[in-house]
Amino acid sequence: MPREVVSYRDGHVYEFGPEMDPVYEAADGESLTIETVDSLNGEIQADDDLLDAIPEEVNAATGPIAVAGASPGDVLAVEIAAVRVAEDRGRVLTAPGFGLRQDDPEIDHPATRITDVDGGGETIAFEGIDVPIEPVIGTIGVATDGETISTLTPDDHGGNLDTADVTAGTTVYFPVFQEGAMLAMGDAKAAMADGEMCGTGAEIAVEVDATLSVIEDPAVSLDRPVVDTGDAVKTLASAATLEEAVELANGDMLDLLAHDHGFSRTDAYLFSSLVGGLEISQVVDPQVTARNAVPSEYLSLAF
Amino acid sequence: MPREVVSYRDGHVYEFGPEMDPVYEAADGESLTIETVDSLNGEIQADDDLLDAIPEEVNAATGPIAVAGASPGDVLAVEIAAVRVAEDRGRVLTAPGFGLRQDDPEIDHPATRITDVDGGGETIAFEGIDVPIEPVIGTIGVATDGETISTLTPDDHGGNLDTADVTAGTTVYFPVFQEGAMLAMGDAKAAMADGEMCGTGAEIAVEVDATLSVIEDPAVSLDRPVVDTGDAVKTLASAATLEEAVELANGDMLDLLAHDHGFSRTDAYLFSSLVGGLEISQVVDPQVTARNAVPSEYLSLAF
Repeated sequence: MPREVVSYRDGHVYEFGPEMDPVYEAADGESLTIETVDSLNGEIQADDDLLDAIPEEVNAATGPIAVAGASPGDVLAVEIAAVRVAEDRGRVLTAPGFGLRQDDPEIDHPATRITDVDGGGETIAFEGIDVPIEPVIGTIGVATDGETISTLTPDDHGGNLDTADVTAGTTVYFPVFQEGAMLAMGDAKAAMADGEMCGTGAEIAVEVDATLSVIEDPAVSLDRPVVDTGDAVKTLASAATLEEAVELANGDMLDLLAHDHGFSRTDAYLFSSLVGGLEISQVVDPQVTARNAVPSEYLSLAF
Repeated sequence: MPREVVSYRDGHVYEFGPEMDPVYEAADGESLTIETVDSLNGEIQADDDLLDAIPEEVNAATGPIAVAGASPGDVLAVEIAAVRVAEDRGRVLTAPGFGLRQDDPEIDHPATRITDVDGGGETIAFEGIDVPIEPVIGTIGVATDGETISTLTPDDHGGNLDTADVTAGTTVYFPVFQEGAMLAMGDAKAAMADGEMCGTGAEIAVEVDATLSVIEDPAVSLDRPVVDTGDAVKTLASAATLEEAVELANGDMLDLLAHDHGFSRTDAYLFSSLVGGLEISQVVDPQVTARNAVPSEYLSLAF
């Protein structure tokens, strides 16, 4: 069977909702390639292309892709084998009213820097500095439990998680809220700092090779996404404040630790204070995203 | 000259203030050993030793140590060569009214687990799981600009930073606010997660080998502590919320990036969104602490 390619030209969304029409139906366990456009739909191509405001339609997410057999209560596993940059430049930028330092008078809003892909496709160039390309899929999620949520916002369904761990070698696990799960992704970066402080990484089009699998009746049910990087298991939570996000992410981690080790919730909590720890994904979207990481030697996922 | 040992028995403090009486005066560039007691003064030795409340005197910080020649506006460099655990057990615990999940009804407050030092001093044991000993100096700071601040609270002078990077191989840089700088440290852990969610790591007595040096008229002045781990430079900021702390830490990082690369503040900000990123030190103290990390290949400290 030839490998299916699902392109943003086939279909893309700017919101995740409870009812989504698939552009493709994947078999359980199918490997496919997903092509994404950059978060700003190719509109920023030079340093003097400035973004006066965040567009209403941003972070086009290719899909949705229905996965056969996925039903509410299941877990969808998205195993990311590769993320390849698919154009010759990225762009990192500020826009008015957006970003951690949007009120800093010494910082230009808007401002754009094009980051050319260089070094045989291994690096991008920022003002003469070579930065290794370490692609990140910024927006990735599934149909929601009920709400309709813009691709600018992360929540329990995933969405604009802007999490650097979502890259090649990682498996992302999502709770399935609707029949078929309805996976969509986009908004990739060639490189991005934890925090995404200015509001973007080096936004770029990519091709993603991924395998989609349904885990029926998982031993531990998920309320929010979890990633397994190979080195660590990380719970992801998005909320209005970092304080709320880290409490949610830690709570989800206690569930995983208690199940894996037979710990009481108290022991899971005490153990969570000794290894790995809290991490920041992004602090700039309408909800912020944080993680609780535990190294893989201390935690096996039950599914 | 024999290496000087400064013990908590020689002197320790429970607050950092503007006027502190030194227990020892170190020469500029002197290497010495500092001995600390655990954060709870040895009162918790068994699982049934419970902490009903955080004591008024907590995190005894050995010192203060005056460093000859340190004057306001200088930077004090504390190069940490080694941190050795100095007792046969640590303790990780909860106390009522303290910790990220202090209102979680399924978690016992108080609760204590003793973590015996094991494996030839290489690990601690938590309920049958071996955790490598990776010591952290939780409280470390200098005399303040004016306020008197408990050793439970971190601020611009350092104090209860609870930052896992403060360990062997790291140099910690402090702004000097008072003559002699007046360094004090304590509250070490045998292991601690980023976040220190339950309110403690595995609290333990340690011996610290460190070299204290004064940097006069630094090319970049510091408002808050900075650490150089060898792999990365990290700015540290403490504030009422994580949102405020990450903004301060990022602002300090922009100053360092702009000085090192000749960047405008806008370019420093854009670059800070591509590499390294925001990290969490702790979310449980009266002020929380966050970091902005940049890998060493992208940033040389000016002093």
